[in-house]
Amino acid sequence: MPEFKTLLVEQLGKVVHIQINRPDKINAMNRAFWEEMIQLFDWIDETPEIRCAVISGAGKHFSAGIDLQMLAEAAAGMDPDIGRKAEAIRRNVLKLQESFNVIDRCRKPVIAAIHGYCIGGAIDLISACDMRYSTEDAHFSIKEIDMGMAADVGTLQRLPRIIGDGMMREMAYTGRAVLGTEAARIGLVNRTWADHEQLLAGVLELAQEIASKSPLAIRGTKEMIRFSRDHSVEDGLNYIATWNAAMLQSDDLKNAVMAHMSKQKPEFAD
Amino acid sequence: MPEFKTLLVEQLGKVVHIQINRPDKINAMNRAFWEEMIQLFDWIDETPEIRCAVISGAGKHFSAGIDLQMLAEAAAGMDPDIGRKAEAIRRNVLKLQESFNVIDRCRKPVIAAIHGYCIGGAIDLISACDMRYSTEDAHFSIKEIDMGMAADVGTLQRLPRIIGDGMMREMAYTGRAVLGTEAARIGLVNRTWADHEQLLAGVLELAQEIASKSPLAIRGTKEMIRFSRDHSVEDGLNYIATWNAAMLQSDDLKNAVMAHMSKQKPEFAD
Amino acid sequence: MPEFKTLLVEQLGKVVHIQINRPDKINAMNRAFWEEMIQLFDWIDETPEIRCAVISGAGKHFSAGIDLQMLAEAAAGMDPDIGRKAEAIRRNVLKLQESFNVIDRCRKPVIAAIHGYCIGGAIDLISACDMRYSTEDAHFSIKEIDMGMAADVGTLQRLPRIIGDGMMREMAYTGRAVLGTEAARIGLVNRTWADHEQLLAGVLELAQEIASKSPLAIRGTKEMIRFSRDHSVEDGLNYIATWNAAMLQSDDLKNAVMAHMSKQKPEFAD
Amino acid sequence: MPEFKTLLVEQLGKVVHIQINRPDKINAMNRAFWEEMIQLFDWIDETPEIRCAVISGAGKHFSAGIDLQMLAEAAAGMDPDIGRKAEAIRRNVLKLQESFNVIDRCRKPVIAAIHGYCIGGAIDLISACDMRYSTEDAHFSIKEIDMGMAADVGTLQRLPRIIGDGMMREMAYTGRAVLGTEAARIGLVNRTWADHEQLLAGVLELAQEIASKSPLAIRGTKEMIRFSRDHSVEDGLNYIATWNAAMLQSDDLKNAVMAHMSKQKPEFAD
Amino acid sequence: MPEFKTLLVEQLGKVVHIQINRPDKINAMNRAFWEEMIQLFDWIDETPEIRCAVISGAGKHFSAGIDLQMLAEAAAGMDPDIGRKAEAIRRNVLKLQESFNVIDRCRKPVIAAIHGYCIGGAIDLISACDMRYSTEDAHFSIKEIDMGMAADVGTLQRLPRIIGDGMMREMAYTGRAVLGTEAARIGLVNRTWADHEQLLAGVLELAQEIASKSPLAIRGTKEMIRFSRDHSVEDGLNYIATWNAAMLQSDDLKNAVMAHMSKQKPEFAD
Amino acid sequence: MPEFKTLLVEQLGKVVHIQINRPDKINAMNRAFWEEMIQLFDWIDETPEIRCAVISGAGKHFSAGIDLQMLAEAAAGMDPDIGRKAEAIRRNVLKLQESFNVIDRCRKPVIAAIHGYCIGGAIDLISACDMRYSTEDAHFSIKEIDMGMAADVGTLQRLPRIIGDGMMREMAYTGRAVLGTEAARIGLVNRTWADHEQLLAGVLELAQEIASKSPLAIRGTKEMIRFSRDHSVEDGLNYIATWNAAMLQSDDLKNAVMAHMSKQKPEFAD
Repeated sequence: MPEFKTLLVEQLGKVVHIQINRPDKINAMNRAFWEEMIQLFDWIDETPEIRCAVISGAGKHFSAGIDLQMLAEAAAGMDPDIGRKAEAIRRNVLKLQESFNVIDRCRKPVIAAIHGYCIGGAIDLISACDMRYSTEDAHFSIKEIDMGMAADVGTLQRLPRIIGDGMMREMAYTGRAVLGTEAARIGLVNRTWADHEQLLAGVLELAQEIASKSPLAIRGTKEMIRFSRDHSVEDGLNYIATWNAAMLQSDDLKNAVMAHMSKQKPEFAD
Repeated sequence: MPEFKTLLVEQLGKVVHIQINRPDKINAMNRAFWEEMIQLFDWIDETPEIRCAVISGAGKHFSAGIDLQMLAEAAAGMDPDIGRKAEAIRRNVLKLQESFNVIDRCRKPVIAAIHGYCIGGAIDLISACDMRYSTEDAHFSIKEIDMGMAADVGTLQRLPRIIGDGMMREMAYTGRAVLGTEAARIGLVNRTWADHEQLLAGVLELAQEIASKSPLAIRGTKEMIRFSRDHSVEDGLNYIATWNAAMLQSDDLKNAVMAHMSKQKPEFAD
Repeated sequence: MPEFKTLLVEQLGKVVHIQINRPDKINAMNRAFWEEMIQLFDWIDETPEIRCAVISGAGKHFSAGIDLQMLAEAAAGMDPDIGRKAEAIRRNVLKLQESFNVIDRCRKPVIAAIHGYCIGGAIDLISACDMRYSTEDAHFSIKEIDMGMAADVGTLQRLPRIIGDGMMREMAYTGRAVLGTEAARIGLVNRTWADHEQLLAGVLELAQEIASKSPLAIRGTKEMIRFSRDHSVEDGLNYIATWNAAMLQSDDLKNAVMAHMSKQKPEFAD
Repeated sequence: MPEFKTLLVEQLGKVVHIQINRPDKINAMNRAFWEEMIQLFDWIDETPEIRCAVISGAGKHFSAGIDLQMLAEAAAGMDPDIGRKAEAIRRNVLKLQESFNVIDRCRKPVIAAIHGYCIGGAIDLISACDMRYSTEDAHFSIKEIDMGMAADVGTLQRLPRIIGDGMMREMAYTGRAVLGTEAARIGLVNRTWADHEQLLAGVLELAQEIASKSPLAIRGTKEMIRFSRDHSVEDGLNYIATWNAAMLQSDDLKNAVMAHMSKQKPEFAD
Repeated sequence: MPEFKTLLVEQLGKVVHIQINRPDKINAMNRAFWEEMIQLFDWIDETPEIRCAVISGAGKHFSAGIDLQMLAEAAAGMDPDIGRKAEAIRRNVLKLQESFNVIDRCRKPVIAAIHGYCIGGAIDLISACDMRYSTEDAHFSIKEIDMGMAADVGTLQRLPRIIGDGMMREMAYTGRAVLGTEAARIGLVNRTWADHEQLLAGVLELAQEIASKSPLAIRGTKEMIRFSRDHSVEDGLNYIATWNAAMLQSDDLKNAVMAHMSKQKPEFAD
Repeated sequence: MPEFKTLLVEQLGKVVHIQINRPDKINAMNRAFWEEMIQLFDWIDETPEIRCAVISGAGKHFSAGIDLQMLAEAAAGMDPDIGRKAEAIRRNVLKLQESFNVIDRCRKPVIAAIHGYCIGGAIDLISACDMRYSTEDAHFSIKEIDMGMAADVGTLQRLPRIIGDGMMREMAYTGRAVLGTEAARIGLVNRTWADHEQLLAGVLELAQEIASKSPLAIRGTKEMIRFSRDHSVEDGLNYIATWNAAMLQSDDLKNAVMAHMSKQKPEFAD
């Protein structure tokens, strides 16, 4: 496992628990964070014995989003030509997006466990996760609008497919806080727990459950749901048929069927 | 009407009530079932006096999904070459998908009325229906994950557009049971009734209501909603304009307007 | 500001309040209405000091939808050749659609405040708005099905992305009334208020809140959400990166950050 | 092999040679023809020992296109309601299209060998083939425009991707004759031969050449080119990677490599 | 017919001949030109007795493209805020594009007849036409690259589908001149004539030929080819089936068939 | 500049000339080659003073494609489970594709100069380039079909958009050799030269010409042509308008216009 400055990473059996670890800065995302996310998820994707990831915040909050100081530094020292500066900004934004694309593209499910503030860039992050769970008093806000800008690392692309279009626009135009209970009602989180401890316990249990399934089947399922998001039903049906042409020849299927018939819990290779 | 071994088909005025009819096998879907579904829906689509279909399960459950014995038989006797076997599997999957595509493509609304178990392939089936209703204690589960495989007859393509993306993934990764009441909350069913009898009565009444409308208008509406699912808003607007170019010249529009003005219920030709 | 016969338009600071103004006809949409909508939204889009629009109904209802008399007149005097008549109808439908496309395309958020009847074409209208709010007893119905036709000015294209696919079809096939409380539950409206007065007060306050944000950021946010609706996540991410390449060079970002640091409310140029 | 009235089908080793066989009617496509095409290509697709098909015309011409008498009969006996008649026509057109879609969808390459007239519906047919070859004096014309209608069985969808957009429109708007030599220049045919005999000899030799390749590899190649036509480069790259995940485990690859190393011609199972 | 300052418009039977009419400025496209193009094509689209349009250049050249003075004026007087200026530029470009989109969207074929210079914006213009014809010595150049900018009124979007991708990039990256003869070889023009007079005679004869066809069929054909450009084969097949559902009920089909049987040239209503 | 084992890289002013450098192996692509391509094009993309790249083959040929020994090694040591092996193969193919995707995605034009053999994987490579030029006797062949497999690193996705669909299939199904002269006729190369020396001289001169243009404009032009390949005309028009919103504020435009007016050759910053 690589070493990280801004992330606390703990392996619990076949589950990895990631904590954003700058609690004195409300886990604001600085330059190191953006780079370490890519290294971390490359490692997760390539490590067979990890089958599921949970991401939460160290300290009292999930995260306050992007570190404003980082933005200020990025602005300094750019080419003064407006066209060249625009090209540099565009490429910076694409690079930042990549730090959350790795979650979306990771072959293994990534679950967000949210307590306290989840603001700005943190909404972009959790939108790229597979599922979201929170405490009842978690505090969600698309804060970019109050920074005078349109959110640009994924919220506006991924969140509309998670919550309703109407509530999406209310959150994006007003930046207003949505608490955990309302978040559950609109589908932003799947369920809530009363406090941070129960949240983590619940989510880690869920992660272990997922980690006990056939990893091939989980990876195929994630790939299909991701693909369906952006393609027609017909294209999706063709894709799963082509995918399963090889996967149904795996031993996992036989193991599962035999375990099912002998009423036992199957074991799957990584 | 063709004859069926695995389906009980009853015509009630302009509504057809289909029951999956292998109650001693929890209505598991065997080879005959997959073939009869195609014959049945070809017949429904081609029979003008049928305007709406309801599908439910005979006995105590809706359906336990695909018949495992059929899978075992399909596996036997395939070409030993991995590539040729892959091609055969791919084509088999595409063929199975076709048995539910006929529901999706059927010009007439198809409503699922679910009680008891609705598991694995049965989720694929109801995802292809227009609407879903259930008893409060109906039991839904994307069971494929516990067979060591990714669901491949439509659930992963169609269900994300019915329930929220977050809950979709929870169901698909864990295979956990969702009961009727929760199903209603997340949009998997439109509403629940207390028991099987009330469910059937309610759904058949709804079907009769739909069957009383202009069949041309119902067919156009279904086609447009299906098309919108996979196309841009702009393409959808163009399509309905082109469609209605002919349909607004039908007598149904005149009949409806005249009935409306004389406060009567209009009658429409098949 | 242009003058309107069927619309009552009032400017309240940076918010414009539009009332459909044919209360004696339950605000039925006649020919003048369809044309004035285009003029109105052209003006809103081009007028920098307007940053948000609210649309409601004068009198006891939001609107009963398209004026049947207008339809009757349109039918008269068409070319008797079925092909040429079809072409004329198609172009008429495309033209009517344009009167609501201007809402969708308007760079500024448009909010619907609904009380009383919201029927037929009125559902098409509110589907093109950014957000919807209503009284608890507002009455929604996709009434086109009872006119013997498939809705063709936007409901079937835009509403499925706002409410669940299952409930969408129930409303479209049956035309049944959905009241404000249920509308909130299925995501058709974001929230309800007890009566018309509170509804208007609440929605106008929300509109003022939106109007206080950076107008560049609001316009970018609306454009991105609209684009995401019809494009892949990847295309959406590329689009916001290209868009923000120029927009992050605006003074609004600096103003917002400075106001944020000095704990003041920022002021943005139009 | 099924029996056919309008098609002369001959199996030459692993190649099937199909002749449209109504020479006294310039091979006009009557009702039997449209139905037999579907049966024929179902059979070709399902028969492993056939690896390539050639389609030509018996007598002096390839084909004069759709049989006008069939159109006249179809028009008679339709529902007088314009809307219902429109629905019937739409379904008829979709059904006719299916008779050429089977060529496009057939897993095995289909080559058109054209001499004499290739007019109207015959252009739709050859547009659905993989490749086209002709005599120098073959006569191509999108004749539908002179029947007062837009071509509706595939020419306008498939031909623009074969010949240039500019020449496509000239042919479609004017219906003018393009002879074999010009056809070769604009890419409508791959090459020409001096006369019918040489054409058939050349095309059958080409077909035998294709039939000697790995049938799995040929089928994969056709599927990929078809898919690329309608999808992005990125989607296409993902598709071939998923496809080849199974196919590269086939023995064909090993056979080919071993034959290559021993300088022999490989033999592939069907 | 509206009056134009920069366009010379002449009606020749059912064909309209448009000349860009600023010969002393090499027909450079000034502000009036961009606006008049929209008025002109609105009029053409709405005028039933016009069935085909030809566009050429008055004087010695087709056109030198956009008027640089107009660009200079547009730059002056913009908001100094970079973000707001970017928004204004973006909207200006979209507006200029509209002046050529009207050609693309015009229901009637538009043919370009090119002699002399056809440079920069003029390439954007002819890319939006249905077909292109030129003199042998016509001079084509994507000159925008030498103005330090990427072409933005349509060349980069439409031309790749007309000429090969490889030659497209060579022309776009180098701005080099392609003469009429080479243009014919790469598909940029359909054919060439020796001089301006013969070119005009030839193109006007072609236009008259097109104008003699069923206008409904021509409009349907153009719509289908345009649609196919941006959609899948399957979507295109469905579209023509839906379109022809009404159009095949027109009298044009009957007239054409009867004329065909009596060996006469059919006459079609506008 | 990084060091390479399989590539000879030479910087000539603002142009970089890359030679595939395993002449004793007919420039077969071994593991090092695939990795070095990524490093090389990362470096080219990030190095402002390089504006254009040329790729050719050292010795007597361009390249014989993938190194068969590498394939054999890749096959060894894989997980014996068919499903897991399939997943590994799929990921390997995606990784190989990436080595040519970097050419396609590189912001700067990449030109292929081909002499001698250009076979198998080499066709995939040149399909990802912006333009292709060759000697008259260059020898092109989609050799994968003779290896018993469908080409999977880009040929089947990119080449159909460069050459006609008909010739594409002939080359892909037969693997037959196409020589330089025929390649020029079907658009596979833009033009040919008599021998290797003239070819290189000609292509390097072209590259220098491109390198003298505004690099911002060249990068914008490449991005737009790439985008148009996979998107609708409408999406492409919107994209260039958004892109140019910033780029038209660059100094390059002013420099170019001033140079144009003073009849001088403009100089552009990197």
